[in-house]
Amino acid sequence: MSKQNPIAQKAIALHKKLKGKISVVSKVAVKTPKDLSLFYTPGVGAVASYLAAHKNEVRDFTIKRNTVAVVSDGSAVLGLGNIGPEGAMPVMEGKCQLFKAFANVDAFPIVLNTQNTEEIVETVKHIAPIFGGINLEDISAPRCFEIEERLIKELDIPVMHDDQHGTAVVVLAAMINSLKVVKKSIAKSKIVIVGAGAAGIATAKLLLLEGAGDVILVDSEAIVCRQRSYTNRFKSEMAKATNVCGLSGSMEEAIKGADILMGLSKADLFKPEHIKSMNKQAIVFAMANPIPEIMPAEAKKAGAAIVATGRSDFPNQINNVLGFPGIFRGALDSNVKKITPKMKLAAAKNLAALVKKPTANHIMPSPFDKRVVKAVARAIKE
Amino acid sequence: MSKQNPIAQKAIALHKKLKGKISVVSKVAVKTPKDLSLFYTPGVGAVASYLAAHKNEVRDFTIKRNTVAVVSDGSAVLGLGNIGPEGAMPVMEGKCQLFKAFANVDAFPIVLNTQNTEEIVETVKHIAPIFGGINLEDISAPRCFEIEERLIKELDIPVMHDDQHGTAVVVLAAMINSLKVVKKSIAKSKIVIVGAGAAGIATAKLLLLEGAGDVILVDSEAIVCRQRSYTNRFKSEMAKATNVCGLSGSMEEAIKGADILMGLSKADLFKPEHIKSMNKQAIVFAMANPIPEIMPAEAKKAGAAIVATGRSDFPNQINNVLGFPGIFRGALDSNVKKITPKMKLAAAKNLAALVKKPTANHIMPSPFDKRVVKAVARAIKE
Repeated sequence: MSKQNPIAQKAIALHKKLKGKISVVSKVAVKTPKDLSLFYTPGVGAVASYLAAHKNEVRDFTIKRNTVAVVSDGSAVLGLGNIGPEGAMPVMEGKCQLFKAFANVDAFPIVLNTQNTEEIVETVKHIAPIFGGINLEDISAPRCFEIEERLIKELDIPVMHDDQHGTAVVVLAAMINSLKVVKKSIAKSKIVIVGAGAAGIATAKLLLLEGAGDVILVDSEAIVCRQRSYTNRFKSEMAKATNVCGLSGSMEEAIKGADILMGLSKADLFKPEHIKSMNKQAIVFAMANPIPEIMPAEAKKAGAAIVATGRSDFPNQINNVLGFPGIFRGALDSNVKKITPKMKLAAAKNLAALVKKPTANHIMPSPFDKRVVKAVARAIKE
Repeated sequence: MSKQNPIAQKAIALHKKLKGKISVVSKVAVKTPKDLSLFYTPGVGAVASYLAAHKNEVRDFTIKRNTVAVVSDGSAVLGLGNIGPEGAMPVMEGKCQLFKAFANVDAFPIVLNTQNTEEIVETVKHIAPIFGGINLEDISAPRCFEIEERLIKELDIPVMHDDQHGTAVVVLAAMINSLKVVKKSIAKSKIVIVGAGAAGIATAKLLLLEGAGDVILVDSEAIVCRQRSYTNRFKSEMAKATNVCGLSGSMEEAIKGADILMGLSKADLFKPEHIKSMNKQAIVFAMANPIPEIMPAEAKKAGAAIVATGRSDFPNQINNVLGFPGIFRGALDSNVKKITPKMKLAAAKNLAALVKKPTANHIMPSPFDKRVVKAVARAIKE
């Protein structure tokens, strides 16, 4: 924690001063009896009756068209683990700020005081009518898979667990450009993903869909392989879908000879020896936040050709803020009911294409590049 | 409907143009990597950890301190009945606009697609953490009583069904000033409330608490009395608590000789004969919206000394907007856990006291009178 202390202190002071980072405002002034009669009674009664009779027109008359719920149960907040709803609140408020700042989406934080799968699914279904989309956030695996799967199936608005798919999209974009720099192909690269939680599994799936020939997942115990048995079906499925060479054993075994090493796990997990054991022109994404699996300088020294992290203070930031604002902007604008794998692939490619000539220190566009949201949103169309 | 057609058309056009009347905004600009690092990762992680360890401080760091959920299931929207969540949406958005305009409260509409009591209670409990208060709205009786009762008991933030208590507060205020004008006492007046739904029952209770000597409720069938049997316990309780003279029979029987006639029912229910059958110096509150139980001119012609309605285009508007903004403003500012009957009585009295010298055409302050919110908020303290 010492590495982030100055920022930590400043952030705590700033949050205490603001007492809430977002606000709900009226788009128009309500100052006269006439305003009241049009926006509220009796005028609104006519709009209410009209919408009751024309349910398919709610997007044209209400906030549904531009509003997303950011839903969390506080079970996997950032890298902090299960810290509950109170801890999740400032994070979800921050996410809503980013939705507004980057994509002009009205996002509202819904922080749940249940971590029961059934109750979460039911609650989100019950509050869905006013929302045009649901961004699930910081919900721990494997519950996040079932919750998302069921909500996608049962709701008629797009539902996306950002820790899974937002991450997968930006990681794929970063990989596409990294492979260009080192002149390797996705089909022939050995790709090791360390961390088999929400982000790791979703990323593995998206890479496979893009044609990755050899993806190996590693969880906190060992390589994910068919020889082991898993308590959740999502990991069992991944054991079948990945690891074509049938590797088993420790993380070290997986990393040997790898072309790409992706950390979606925890601070300081990768050592220089690991990087040294990789193939030539090694690509290392150390995305644990705020402290990466290995510091960029250390990885470079050990021979990595390209290093990326989740942090803004190093080159090559792989940050979800490059993904989710544009994904939901596109979904809301095009009235998309489901965000499909095809859309996610297109989003990653559009994002990657914004960097015309990728180099070792410049594989990703800046989150503040105005083209980002538009490029990603363009990919999200039915 | 013909009476409101010009407003109706204008309101529909305006809602279609706005496509949502409220917006969620960031209180501060998010424009640089430094902003990102303080409001989101890594800075927000420190705030998240801090709040997980200091749960009782969330009000000092998050939007909870100033945020209210406006929750409806669309089962009793305005006077339109059970029109469902789509119809409820523009009304709840409007309510959120009023919260902001009149009391600077950040209110967000939660429109439910369930009308099951158990599911509503569970859903509101699950989403409660981010909110500093719950305003229940347009939920039909008798479910509204149980839902409110249980949420008040099970949550540690104030919960108020505005159709009940907001109405009761402003009606009591109007009555206090009306009785001053006609020089009658609440203890000796015969008060008839037509409409034994959410508003009627809550108003009757608050009047009794203020010392009303003779309150008679009338439902859509007849006078509420002990001789009848009721399917819901809330009406049975009222049959015991009201109607000291043991009247039974039709609405006409109740109104004969009444000092005060309150309509919380439906358009055009009161006829001139009813008003003529009342005691001298009759007070008539015809609060059905948008079309009152009797038009003011007609009631006056039939002998009423004071007439009030829910409408802004007649004198003496009895409007909930005089109540709920200040009630929640006070509750949020004083961190009140429950809104007690004592607070509601104080709110009504503070509201009435704003009109120094009430007259037959001026019993209520204007909703746009800046003193209103402060006076009501002052009453809500533990």
